[in-house]
Amino acid sequence: MADPKIEEILAPLRSAVKEQGDMVRQLKSSGAPEIDIKRAVAELKARKKILEDKELALTPVTESFDRGKMEDLLKRRFFYDQSFAIYGGVTGQFDYGPMGCALKANMLNLWRSFFIIEEGMSEVDCSVLTPEPVLKASGHVERFADLMVKDLTSGECFRLDHLIKAALEKQAAAKDAKLEFKEKIADILVKLDGMTKDEMGALLKEFKIKSPLTGNDLTEPIEFNLMFSTHIGPTGLIKGFLRPETAQGIFVNFKRLLEFNMGKLPFAAAQIGNAFRNEISPRSGLLRVREFTMAEIEHFCDPNDKSHPKFSDVSDTEVVLYSACDQMDGKSAKIMTIGDAVHLKLVDNETLGYYMARIQAYLLLVGIAKDKLRFRQHMAQEMAHYACDCWDAEALTSYGWVECVGCADRSAYDLTQHTSATGTKLSAEKTLPAPKTVTVTEPQINKSIVGRAFKKDAKTVTEALNRLGTEQLEEMSTILNEKGEYVLTAADSSEHIITKDMLTVKTYEKTVHVEEIIPSVVEPSFGIGRVMYALLEHNFRVRKNDEQRTFLTIPPSVAPLKCAIFPLSANTDFQPKIKQLSSAFRKLDISHRIDDSSGSIGRRYSRTDEIAVPFGVTIDFETLKNSTATLRERDSMEQIRLPLSDIPELVQDLSVGRRTWTDAKSKYPNVEAKPAANAAD
Amino acid sequence: MADPKIEEILAPLRSAVKEQGDMVRQLKSSGAPEIDIKRAVAELKARKKILEDKELALTPVTESFDRGKMEDLLKRRFFYDQSFAIYGGVTGQFDYGPMGCALKANMLNLWRSFFIIEEGMSEVDCSVLTPEPVLKASGHVERFADLMVKDLTSGECFRLDHLIKAALEKQAAAKDAKLEFKEKIADILVKLDGMTKDEMGALLKEFKIKSPLTGNDLTEPIEFNLMFSTHIGPTGLIKGFLRPETAQGIFVNFKRLLEFNMGKLPFAAAQIGNAFRNEISPRSGLLRVREFTMAEIEHFCDPNDKSHPKFSDVSDTEVVLYSACDQMDGKSAKIMTIGDAVHLKLVDNETLGYYMARIQAYLLLVGIAKDKLRFRQHMAQEMAHYACDCWDAEALTSYGWVECVGCADRSAYDLTQHTSATGTKLSAEKTLPAPKTVTVTEPQINKSIVGRAFKKDAKTVTEALNRLGTEQLEEMSTILNEKGEYVLTAADSSEHIITKDMLTVKTYEKTVHVEEIIPSVVEPSFGIGRVMYALLEHNFRVRKNDEQRTFLTIPPSVAPLKCAIFPLSANTDFQPKIKQLSSAFRKLDISHRIDDSSGSIGRRYSRTDEIAVPFGVTIDFETLKNSTATLRERDSMEQIRLPLSDIPELVQDLSVGRRTWTDAKSKYPNVEAKPAANAAD
Repeated sequence: MADPKIEEILAPLRSAVKEQGDMVRQLKSSGAPEIDIKRAVAELKARKKILEDKELALTPVTESFDRGKMEDLLKRRFFYDQSFAIYGGVTGQFDYGPMGCALKANMLNLWRSFFIIEEGMSEVDCSVLTPEPVLKASGHVERFADLMVKDLTSGECFRLDHLIKAALEKQAAAKDAKLEFKEKIADILVKLDGMTKDEMGALLKEFKIKSPLTGNDLTEPIEFNLMFSTHIGPTGLIKGFLRPETAQGIFVNFKRLLEFNMGKLPFAAAQIGNAFRNEISPRSGLLRVREFTMAEIEHFCDPNDKSHPKFSDVSDTEVVLYSACDQMDGKSAKIMTIGDAVHLKLVDNETLGYYMARIQAYLLLVGIAKDKLRFRQHMAQEMAHYACDCWDAEALTSYGWVECVGCADRSAYDLTQHTSATGTKLSAEKTLPAPKTVTVTEPQINKSIVGRAFKKDAKTVTEALNRLGTEQLEEMSTILNEKGEYVLTAADSSEHIITKDMLTVKTYEKTVHVEEIIPSVVEPSFGIGRVMYALLEHNFRVRKNDEQRTFLTIPPSVAPLKCAIFPLSANTDFQPKIKQLSSAFRKLDISHRIDDSSGSIGRRYSRTDEIAVPFGVTIDFETLKNSTATLRERDSMEQIRLPLSDIPELVQDLSVGRRTWTDAKSKYPNVEAKPAANAAD
Repeated sequence: MADPKIEEILAPLRSAVKEQGDMVRQLKSSGAPEIDIKRAVAELKARKKILEDKELALTPVTESFDRGKMEDLLKRRFFYDQSFAIYGGVTGQFDYGPMGCALKANMLNLWRSFFIIEEGMSEVDCSVLTPEPVLKASGHVERFADLMVKDLTSGECFRLDHLIKAALEKQAAAKDAKLEFKEKIADILVKLDGMTKDEMGALLKEFKIKSPLTGNDLTEPIEFNLMFSTHIGPTGLIKGFLRPETAQGIFVNFKRLLEFNMGKLPFAAAQIGNAFRNEISPRSGLLRVREFTMAEIEHFCDPNDKSHPKFSDVSDTEVVLYSACDQMDGKSAKIMTIGDAVHLKLVDNETLGYYMARIQAYLLLVGIAKDKLRFRQHMAQEMAHYACDCWDAEALTSYGWVECVGCADRSAYDLTQHTSATGTKLSAEKTLPAPKTVTVTEPQINKSIVGRAFKKDAKTVTEALNRLGTEQLEEMSTILNEKGEYVLTAADSSEHIITKDMLTVKTYEKTVHVEEIIPSVVEPSFGIGRVMYALLEHNFRVRKNDEQRTFLTIPPSVAPLKCAIFPLSANTDFQPKIKQLSSAFRKLDISHRIDDSSGSIGRRYSRTDEIAVPFGVTIDFETLKNSTATLRERDSMEQIRLPLSDIPELVQDLSVGRRTWTDAKSKYPNVEAKPAANAAD
């Protein structure tokens, strides 16, 4: 990260970023108009992107990665593939085949034991179909949208930023394009990400952009909500959406979960499940899809005390942090311990820091490469308005740095929103260090008068009265005294006339031992498909001296199958030994595959290497004589010979990480691959 | 099952069923009109229902079951509860809380190892959002519907059969209802299940049934499709549905899966995932819901050889079979071995029989009571038209016998449907015993002429030509020779004019070594929520002599938590021991809970018994002295004392069934619960 030659090239880019970062800071501190700040931020992001692209381009490449080759392997061995392909398929939908499905199931099982069991979290499994009011409260109905344009004639839709990018790149690539024009386009393209609806609309006009498929005119930019909508029940009157994230299911169950945890904070709830986003034009394989599996944690804690009891266990963990500040200054990401980061207030609090360390540990465990992982902090202007700090775990892939896990402090936003939408208080009680006296203002309602006056609406009215705050109660009391009547607006916007005889507003003093707090929420949110894609890239290898032999070095703990069994030949004498071994594997729940297909043993090894099987047992003529067999390790291709009866337990231990291959080699004799086998191997 | 007194009461009911069963048989064999058969079958079902209800009512009750009490427990300890309750909730949607979620996850993990790993199946994980053409081919768009009526004014919807039942019951219960009228109603009610749309419509008129909520008039019966629909992508042009079952995802991936299994039959694929049904008026808790988890297996095999290599492993398994024939004869279910059942052709084939035995083994393992489980065969007229045999595993609950797992031989129906919808052959190759000579008729297409003539449609035309069968090809050839032109209809219904120069139709002989077969599919299909509900009922208990103390005897292998840790009191000296034990549990992935709440130890035991925790460790003053602790077993409430360091491994062994409680008791000293603790316990 500090090659002087590279730094020399990067220096001017770094200072260009810093100059703009300082400009943004200055604009903010001087209270400049928001539109000026937005423009300056767009320019900042543009400069940052140029710097990062250059940095990546200059990073010495240790091994080349051929995405086409990997995709071919994943398709051919059915890790995943397009859904409904025989019907022409739909973009952004994928089916996981046996290998992808087993990998995913293993990743999720590990996640469950690593987070839920290890941390004693409360797991829930909530409904996917969500009624509209829930997602109105969460802000998704209003804000969860992307910009698109439609072909005025054919109705074809295009995601606006993708369309502009493609159109401008084409114009810049035209034979007669002048240098000046090309530079202008390049400048626009880097700023595109930060542009507003109007700015992009202006570009459509300026560059006369038409539908790329038909040449027809396009609509103005449209905000397209990314949620799939449907109707729940037969009347067609209850509008619902497929959930766009799993988190809301946890928030609406907060009261039950708090009770399950005996009313005590902090506690964490977790959910693994599918979420759905109707992307306008999905691309980049598994990275942007319409259905995906998420694993989310909502850690509820005291807003005034975000310390974590187990923080000291992880404080020495080194993480690569790319802070908002460093991003604005044009600096690189830095390595430091999470303990220092929290101490320096770079990471807002211990709980956030604890989860960042745990997220990293999980990612490394499933096979994400340590040197291709960083935490990037959201800059103030990209953070959701409710969050107070947010770090994304990003993995470096052939598509660039990809967000795999978000880790945000969402403060009290969600619980507050659902409380005000439903009138159900989503809060916890905190015991005060000492009892205190408070002044309480409450309506004392004459139920029988209210009941007679409002009949079936009496409940609505009573609830509305009980929801009034101190100020509103006092205001009502004044109006009632002056005019004798007060117009009350209920939660459903209906209005009701309250008269003086219906209630009295009482104010009195009371000693309280607890205070009510709305917990803060720290949310680690995993996109399982993205983690999987990144780990596939990080573990894709080509054997030295043989470009055709590709393999996957996925860690045994999550590899789709743990072991392969190879009879040396079709000789039927091998069958009883194979059956015996397979049955012993099944007893220990070791997923395995018998490869008794024709083809040299080398070719068969190579076929199982492709699907990441970490261990392989070969049953040969020596097995028939003395009941020993060879065990081969995928990455090193080394082999040892050991008694057949020792194999199941050893493979299990190796798979869960209780023993290492080095241990195994020290206990059993190494087998030199025979010259012939070697050549084929 | 053979109490003579009971049989005496049942005898006339049995013969009434048999009389009607014989009538149905006679009508069928004499080729009577379908409407007459349908009527006779409805009457048969009605008589069967009376018999079964009586049989159940007369079964000696070994223990009483209080559904209200169980539901209270499940809600209070958050096994599951209504979704979005703070927003008023939606019927038919449930959220699983920590206990329900852990139980479900354990059931699914066991399912995965019991079926997928043990049988070497190919697991897939396919898209939920399914484009319309796929579900047209499967028949769901046309046929997956229930009957309903709407309130003409308010638009409120009612499921037709539920509405009629409620309305008629109310009329029969009226004070002035005559005996004759009551009998007529009773007769209609038992026949309701088998009635057609028109018959039910006639009842609405005859009994002047109105909306039960408003008294308004109702619409005619309407077929309401139970799939949730939405649009995929932004254009609103691609109609899609949430899948109503997971099976179709496997069928459309058949070719990839066959290839993954090296082209060999038989093989099985499995999928665990959510499916969705927009029920008109969901009821009965978890039994009829709008979102549910299924676990489905599709076993593909040679239609002419449905033997199963492992059938002999299960042939001695005793199962309770309630055959279609016995149902028509008014007989009871019979116990026999699955081997005999297949031998007698009662169960159609070995593969079906093998899965029935395996389904039973799984259900018993997760805690379904053996005496409340039976397999009921579909009678010819209730079987889907494509199935050739179908048995439902039914569990006896307080709602009656409930289908939990279906096990059907779907023959080649699905693969055939998708083949004809897409033109992609979903078939397998079977090596012939000896090569044979066949006559082949094929179009030999002049590609350049076709390309020039049809340009972008050339591919469509070529595909349409290649899909023509021998007869069609010969017909085309004749027409081309006579008229020089032929109108070809492509898969998308477009028409294209073929001229003589575009192709020649060749017929020749060829030696083939393989034949193409469309595999038969045997499908075990689990409704996980229903299995869970049944096992909760079967394991709900009340302690003898204490009606308030309810508990769940869920087997340790699927129990939500495996162990509880109880410090005897709040004494801080216990803390290090608790931490040490908890950390050892975590290392072995043993889910557990520390209950350090106040309350007597007896009350705390009782609280963990409610959530089915099978084992509990109590840390007491002796633990501080000699590092031993007591281990308590939930069902027997027996306790043993053993070294703290032995506990984690013992609990793990007990949880996975490697050791039994009896073993444990023989190794460690029994602890007599102290009188005081006993009283509270």
